[in-house]
Amino acid sequence: MQADPDPRRAVGTRTMEEVVRKRPPESPTLLEETIRDFGFAEIWTRPGLDRRSRYWISISASAATALTDPLEDYVHGALRSGEISLAELREGVLHFAVYMGWPLGRQFDRIVTKVADSLGLSADVPNLRDRPWDPDERFAFGKASYIDIMTFPSPEGPTPFYDAGIKNFVFGEMWMRPGLDQRARRWITLACVGASDSPNPIATHVYAAMKTGDATVDEMKEFVLHYAFELGWPKGSVMQTAVETMADRIARGLEWM
Amino acid sequence: MQADPDPRRAVGTRTMEEVVRKRPPESPTLLEETIRDFGFAEIWTRPGLDRRSRYWISISASAATALTDPLEDYVHGALRSGEISLAELREGVLHFAVYMGWPLGRQFDRIVTKVADSLGLSADVPNLRDRPWDPDERFAFGKASYIDIMTFPSPEGPTPFYDAGIKNFVFGEMWMRPGLDQRARRWITLACVGASDSPNPIATHVYAAMKTGDATVDEMKEFVLHYAFELGWPKGSVMQTAVETMADRIARGLEWM
Amino acid sequence: MQADPDPRRAVGTRTMEEVVRKRPPESPTLLEETIRDFGFAEIWTRPGLDRRSRYWISISASAATALTDPLEDYVHGALRSGEISLAELREGVLHFAVYMGWPLGRQFDRIVTKVADSLGLSADVPNLRDRPWDPDERFAFGKASYIDIMTFPSPEGPTPFYDAGIKNFVFGEMWMRPGLDQRARRWITLACVGASDSPNPIATHVYAAMKTGDATVDEMKEFVLHYAFELGWPKGSVMQTAVETMADRIARGLEWM
Repeated sequence: MQADPDPRRAVGTRTMEEVVRKRPPESPTLLEETIRDFGFAEIWTRPGLDRRSRYWISISASAATALTDPLEDYVHGALRSGEISLAELREGVLHFAVYMGWPLGRQFDRIVTKVADSLGLSADVPNLRDRPWDPDERFAFGKASYIDIMTFPSPEGPTPFYDAGIKNFVFGEMWMRPGLDQRARRWITLACVGASDSPNPIATHVYAAMKTGDATVDEMKEFVLHYAFELGWPKGSVMQTAVETMADRIARGLEWM
Repeated sequence: MQADPDPRRAVGTRTMEEVVRKRPPESPTLLEETIRDFGFAEIWTRPGLDRRSRYWISISASAATALTDPLEDYVHGALRSGEISLAELREGVLHFAVYMGWPLGRQFDRIVTKVADSLGLSADVPNLRDRPWDPDERFAFGKASYIDIMTFPSPEGPTPFYDAGIKNFVFGEMWMRPGLDQRARRWITLACVGASDSPNPIATHVYAAMKTGDATVDEMKEFVLHYAFELGWPKGSVMQTAVETMADRIARGLEWM
Repeated sequence: MQADPDPRRAVGTRTMEEVVRKRPPESPTLLEETIRDFGFAEIWTRPGLDRRSRYWISISASAATALTDPLEDYVHGALRSGEISLAELREGVLHFAVYMGWPLGRQFDRIVTKVADSLGLSADVPNLRDRPWDPDERFAFGKASYIDIMTFPSPEGPTPFYDAGIKNFVFGEMWMRPGLDQRARRWITLACVGASDSPNPIATHVYAAMKTGDATVDEMKEFVLHYAFELGWPKGSVMQTAVETMADRIARGLEWM
């Protein structure tokens, strides 16, 4: 009996079973073979980033593609492995929808419901709205939260996007919900600003992720590789440049620009 | 009987019924609750932009995501409310396909057909081609139209993209079709250049929308918030910067660059 | 009997039958009419680019949209016409997946399987892994391949994206697989970097495509028009600017930046 000509196969098969609870196909196509032998054997096994973080990156990136199958696999795997709870996923869906828009968010939400139903799971999500919102209070709260999360003040000026959008809702309500930790929110945000190809949001969120300590520089570099596998090398290249640039600026005590 | 702890719920429910002719789910997920209480209650109700414009923005943005359900809801709502006619939607599909490519355009077209059939609607679209095109005439026409619509001359040089594409077809034929007003074409274009993440097309079309008077600066700012809800805050941020920059250039009597 | 008011109709119908092996609808919508009379009659018939290249561009661009119908039509047409073999398509799927991420790649793979099954085709793809990879050998190989393909050295520095990703896998393994010629790989890559909206990857791959001689400047300009039809004029505009800029730099003997 010969030795396996490629030891990656066994590692990839085992890792794929752990991550998405599926075995690779018996007669894989070239792509399926590569997903097993490179994606699962050589990326998911790397030590520089914990598995929970990798799930959030893969889930957010695949939700951004508008496809459902890979997303469903990852959601299934995250829930089955216990790395992410259903209540956390519901918060993650909202966070994702804010960064990628609600049409994509709604599809992600339906996939979570489908997988949860198939596993017999249900979850209560804390309701923040037990009293009417005071618009002024929310606005002031959003302004303060923005600085905590982004590390610099939000743009000023009476404009609907910054006021009714960013301060009132994104930072006045969504980011501060208690059901999901800030590090998970970072991975969702980073995958989404990258998938959105938006230069300044990429720069500011890469900067803030490291500046707040939510992720180390080395973890951010691992993030780039993992994210590139999900969304392709060109988007990975943009993210890699942002991580290098912003790590350098932080090391030199500079603002993001 | 207690007061509703959140008055946004009633406003959001009513607005959602008006816009997409559906009631929110009885037991909403966190995301569905937010779509109702933020999207419908706090964005669709804002006074700075008319509902017909909001439909065009939401329809174009959701068509750009490659998803069908939100698009179908909006097309249904636009036709039922009478804000957009079926003949206009057919023109809108063509305009969208030029800016987002024909694979996405073809899916949008099928959704329009599906909804029109379900409502028993049909429409005749004016045929511009009652005589063969004279290529020279069309080219000259496209060159003149380009200036009218963009406010500056089209790039010169014998290159297929500008000649066979932009002048011959996009401005020589598509933009000048009579079945859809120029303001509606602007919203479709703006949503599509934004969804396409293309820096110069974003800059030029934001500039031209305001410079021609098709949209005011304040309407453009409302557009950004509405668009950000559909396609996410990072893309909204890019658009917000473009609106601020171009409004400033126009106020100072400058060209787009 | 009157002359056909638009001679483009006959050309478009015939070309569409050749390319996707389908007749246009008898009662076309405005969009379907335009796909026939502009897309098939005026773009696919242009002499400046061979049909095999156009298939690779259309296949890659439609695979990038996350939609399946246009992709299936093109895959079917490419196989039926003999312009692309099934074994080449399997290599193309892997190449595409590296540049657009594996969720989109997996969907492309399934469409290829579906069409191949419907045509009763099967193919053996050469297995490069008949002995275990030596990581050092692969890394050195990737470093050399990078220069051959990109025309300049890869970025240095111990970072997972460049080392475990780019050198180890993308250039150490994928690009050098023998089952697909380098010119086909260029079209896939160009469509993918464009669809990914990634400025530096667009610049470097446009530069390298011309610098290596895989495509002439005139072919690249035809590529832009064809690509713009599939993914929209805004993305076409970004690509057109890149082609002009990089052709000029090459003519002046300059590096890409």
